[in-house]
Amino acid sequence: MKKLAVFGATGSIGRAALEIVKSYPERFQVLGISAKTNLNLLKNLAQKFKVPYLVVENEELAKKLKASLNYSAEVLWGDRGLKELSILPEIDLLLIGISGIKGLIPTYYGLKKGKIVALANKESLVCAGGLLKKIAKQTGGKIIPVDSEHSSLFQLLNKEPFSNIEKIFLTASGGPFYKKPIREFVNITPEVAIKHPTWKMGVKISIDSATLMNKGFEVIEAQVLFDFPLEKIEILIHPQSIVHALVKLIDGSYLAHLSWPDMKIPIAYALTLFERIKLPVKELNLEEIGTLTFEKPDFQKFPCLRLAYEAVREGNFAPLILEAADEVVVSAFLERKITFDKIPYFLEKTLKEFKINFQVKEELEDILFLHQEVCQFTKNLVEKGS
Amino acid sequence: MKKLAVFGATGSIGRAALEIVKSYPERFQVLGISAKTNLNLLKNLAQKFKVPYLVVENEELAKKLKASLNYSAEVLWGDRGLKELSILPEIDLLLIGISGIKGLIPTYYGLKKGKIVALANKESLVCAGGLLKKIAKQTGGKIIPVDSEHSSLFQLLNKEPFSNIEKIFLTASGGPFYKKPIREFVNITPEVAIKHPTWKMGVKISIDSATLMNKGFEVIEAQVLFDFPLEKIEILIHPQSIVHALVKLIDGSYLAHLSWPDMKIPIAYALTLFERIKLPVKELNLEEIGTLTFEKPDFQKFPCLRLAYEAVREGNFAPLILEAADEVVVSAFLERKITFDKIPYFLEKTLKEFKINFQVKEELEDILFLHQEVCQFTKNLVEKGS
Repeated sequence: MKKLAVFGATGSIGRAALEIVKSYPERFQVLGISAKTNLNLLKNLAQKFKVPYLVVENEELAKKLKASLNYSAEVLWGDRGLKELSILPEIDLLLIGISGIKGLIPTYYGLKKGKIVALANKESLVCAGGLLKKIAKQTGGKIIPVDSEHSSLFQLLNKEPFSNIEKIFLTASGGPFYKKPIREFVNITPEVAIKHPTWKMGVKISIDSATLMNKGFEVIEAQVLFDFPLEKIEILIHPQSIVHALVKLIDGSYLAHLSWPDMKIPIAYALTLFERIKLPVKELNLEEIGTLTFEKPDFQKFPCLRLAYEAVREGNFAPLILEAADEVVVSAFLERKITFDKIPYFLEKTLKEFKINFQVKEELEDILFLHQEVCQFTKNLVEKGS
Repeated sequence: MKKLAVFGATGSIGRAALEIVKSYPERFQVLGISAKTNLNLLKNLAQKFKVPYLVVENEELAKKLKASLNYSAEVLWGDRGLKELSILPEIDLLLIGISGIKGLIPTYYGLKKGKIVALANKESLVCAGGLLKKIAKQTGGKIIPVDSEHSSLFQLLNKEPFSNIEKIFLTASGGPFYKKPIREFVNITPEVAIKHPTWKMGVKISIDSATLMNKGFEVIEAQVLFDFPLEKIEILIHPQSIVHALVKLIDGSYLAHLSWPDMKIPIAYALTLFERIKLPVKELNLEEIGTLTFEKPDFQKFPCLRLAYEAVREGNFAPLILEAADEVVVSAFLERKITFDKIPYFLEKTLKEFKINFQVKEELEDILFLHQEVCQFTKNLVEKGS
């Protein structure tokens, strides 16, 4: 029986995880769930699974939730609540389904306590990959990727000695604008940009998929997770999103992992610690799909890809700077302060012009502070530039 | 240093194997090679690798070869020669690249001596799968598949617990006539039929690929090799021959193995006992290939597929009967005694009408005798029917 905490329980990752838990009550017990503000859904989930520890964004919501529950639970709140839940001694495994830099908090504290962290939060590895790996090494904590591409890579790489691997390939659907002429990018509205062709996801990640910044972050994550040289990590455009990752072996052959785009598969693989279980997912029949296509990514049209590779090469917090800038720039696009085509422009400008003006200790507080500083810097850039 | 015997050294499998040996002289030593009648090539290979044991088809060829060699070697001949080479104590691993039922001889004797048999010969498993597995179990001998599809399956199945596997898929190019209307099958000539669209192979196997009988035999082989229920073994038509096999897991995802159609990959995987080594094969770039397609196989148009499944269900030497009949029927087609569309007709007729009229002990002699009996029976059928 694995004892879980699900961070971001009301988001797409959290809901999928709880669907799995519901099907396998003999395998999993949920001891904690968190949500930002979706109090109704959190309450429903809490009552359904009789979850003893709950976390919400602030004290007010915590009181409201506590008062409305039909059973007695510990209701925590804020960053402190995230921390407290992540270090509870009775919990084995944390699923981090929170998006944004906040996801780093439970990841960091969970790893500090040597826990297993099933990580769907991109920002943690992009902004603090080195730190998290260092901690995991010290404490025996484990990071298990839950992103579909990284889970697929993890599954494939587990199966071959490291020295047999020549290259790794992350696939990308290409997003909704892969075939659109670049001169029309200026007219792309937020309404159109959030419609991802194959995956159902949150707003921020949908925009990141449209700019391919998301795939850039995934390259950074892969580099951190698998300790693999950047020049051997490639992207393949694969609009059907059926093949999630490929590994090229030194004998010239490839291993691939395929499925319908359904997060339940990577989540279950992580929660079960690499057992496989039957899942309520759509049946994949290749003869029905018929055609799988692959293309080279277009680095000219999608400069965010180039920025990601450059940030890794640059090192020294450049991936964090890129990620923080992206949060601000995507918000600005969603608020119609800047046009879609300007997203990479402001990212590149931040990367070039932001200077770290204090001694960053590789610890949580400094990283969160630096992230804020970059956000503020990019906000100013956007205000001035738009 | 692995000590090898390469049976069928002058055929496509044997030549590919010796190319690998040439690139890795520190890994492999060739102690024996055999060929049927291609004396010139056998002599060249023998001299190049200074092979101490050689086998040819008959005494006359043996004498001729012995006289022409520029070094001293033991030259054996006939079935007895195949047997003697296969049981030499100093040899670890036999590669069986002989086509036809003759390939069973070294396979059988090698396994009896507990050797590792890298098996590219289809007939061995189709005609005597049960016997070979029984012997391997007794002696600790190992069968490693070298057929590309089975090697791919072997690689994929090695990576997951048996209970995680829901289905296995063998891919098939579909051969040259997959899109041809069935009413035109009567006009297909041997010259056209031997031109396989993706693989370069011998004549018999090229015809078997055109009728899809080859894929049917592969289903039988897979069933024997992997002890997998027949109803969970499926065929997918995949004209590009890039994905060689897929394994469907219980969580709804698939693992796949991909490469250019090049036998050096499965041969090297077997010869190295599942290490991987760099190979002189064409580089596979999925973005250059662009499109991979998959279709359901057409059992109406290609009744040989149905016959293979029926033969496994029937059991009791039916796969052997099908295979023996096929040797005769394919020869008759190549000699223009029957038309292409009649191939499955004579196979089915043999399956239905051939009666085993003696007590078959599951031993080599009886199996070879039964095979001959079926061949004679089908010859008579063809003579009468054409």
